[in-house]
Amino acid sequence: MAEDNVIYVGDKKPMNYVLATITQFNEEDSDEVILKARGGAISTAVDAAEITRNRFLTEVDIQDITTKTEELEDEEGGTSNVSAIEITLGMSE
Amino acid sequence: MAEDNVIYVGDKKPMNYVLATITQFNEEDSDEVILKARGGAISTAVDAAEITRNRFLTEVDIQDITTKTEELEDEEGGTSNVSAIEITLGMSE
Repeated sequence: MAEDNVIYVGDKKPMNYVLATITQFNEEDSDEVILKARGGAISTAVDAAEITRNRFLTEVDIQDITTKTEELEDEEGGTSNVSAIEITLGMSE
Repeated sequence: MAEDNVIYVGDKKPMNYVLATITQFNEEDSDEVILKARGGAISTAVDAAEITRNRFLTEVDIQDITTKTEELEDEEGGTSNVSAIEITLGMSE
């Protein structure tokens, strides 16, 4: 799920990603964690970021949010567009 | 759905909100439109913003994205938290 300080948010419950984020900050000693999600998981990523900073790591803040459109290839070789979000969490100055 | 230049994104399809955004820019002559959404509709708001700027109003850009946690009262008087997003679309300089 985590690659360096990137956490890919999928279709699990938000708390799974809250835990992964806390682990990344505390045990991996990252000072920045990026939550990445696509499509319907975008809402879960926002939930995870909000829960993390409001209830668990109050010294962490949302430092940047960017969105983009990614092109995915389906099995038949066709392509479809999907929205994606990147939420950067970091220690507030 | 629109109040001044604010569009509340709910559980309709993204294209409904893309149309509302285009109308707000073109017919209401707004130079800034804010998409607001909560919970699961957050993904729809991101879709609407991305579709609008990539396929319809290419001169419009995402100028700001903020998230927050809102407290909602349920029927029994209890409260629950929900994540919310605000996406500001504006004419790119």
